[in-house]
Amino acid sequence: MSYYERHIFFCLNERAPGEASCSQHGAEAAFAHCKQRVKAEGLAGPGGVRVNRAGCLDRCAGGPVAVVYPEAVWYTFVDASDIDEIVSSHLKGGQVVDRLVLAPEVGR
Amino acid sequence: MSYYERHIFFCLNERAPGEASCSQHGAEAAFAHCKQRVKAEGLAGPGGVRVNRAGCLDRCAGGPVAVVYPEAVWYTFVDASDIDEIVSSHLKGGQVVDRLVLAPEVGR
Repeated sequence: MSYYERHIFFCLNERAPGEASCSQHGAEAAFAHCKQRVKAEGLAGPGGVRVNRAGCLDRCAGGPVAVVYPEAVWYTFVDASDIDEIVSSHLKGGQVVDRLVLAPEVGR
Repeated sequence: MSYYERHIFFCLNERAPGEASCSQHGAEAAFAHCKQRVKAEGLAGPGGVRVNRAGCLDRCAGGPVAVVYPEAVWYTFVDASDIDEIVSSHLKGGQVVDRLVLAPEVGR
C-alpha cells in the first residue's frame, strides 16, 4: 500500500524575468489553495493525500501543471475552481477530471 | 501510459538552523548525483526517467528521503553508491532496492 493514497506535486519552478515558468502563471496560489482545501476536507496525511511543492516537472508548454501519483495523471489549471474540482473529484473521489488533463504530447 | 516511466522526487527541504531537514543530510548532493547518473545512462526524458526536486515529503524521521512513482517506493540513502544502486537497479531495471526502502511506519 502506498504511504499516501494520492500524492499531488505542483510545479513551482521560477525562472529569470522574461522566461516563462509555472510560478508566473499562478502555480503558487493554486498550490496553497489545494493544500488548504485538502486539509479542510480532512484528506491530508499518511493514508490520505499529500500536496507537495516540486521543482520543474519539464512539461512547461502546458504550464501551470501538476501531477497526481500513483495514477500518473497530469493536470493543467486556470483558477481556484479548477483546483476545487481536482480535489473533490480526483483527490477525494478517485475520479479523474478529464477536461483538465494535459494532452499527452505537451512537453517542455 | 505514464509520461515518465519512473519519476523520482528528492526531498530538498531546508529548515532554519537548529532544525533537522533532508537538505542538511546530503539530499542536494544525492539529487545532483542521481540526475547526472540518469543522464549518463541515457534514461532521462519522456518515456524514461525524471529526477525531480521536491519540497518537504513529510517523512522527515527517515531523512534524507526520495520517492519513486508510479510504484510509490520510498527510499532513504547515505551516499553516492546508494544512489547508484537505486539508478541501476530500480530506475533502469525496475528492481526495488529492498535494503534502502524506508520502513512503513516512518513519518514526520
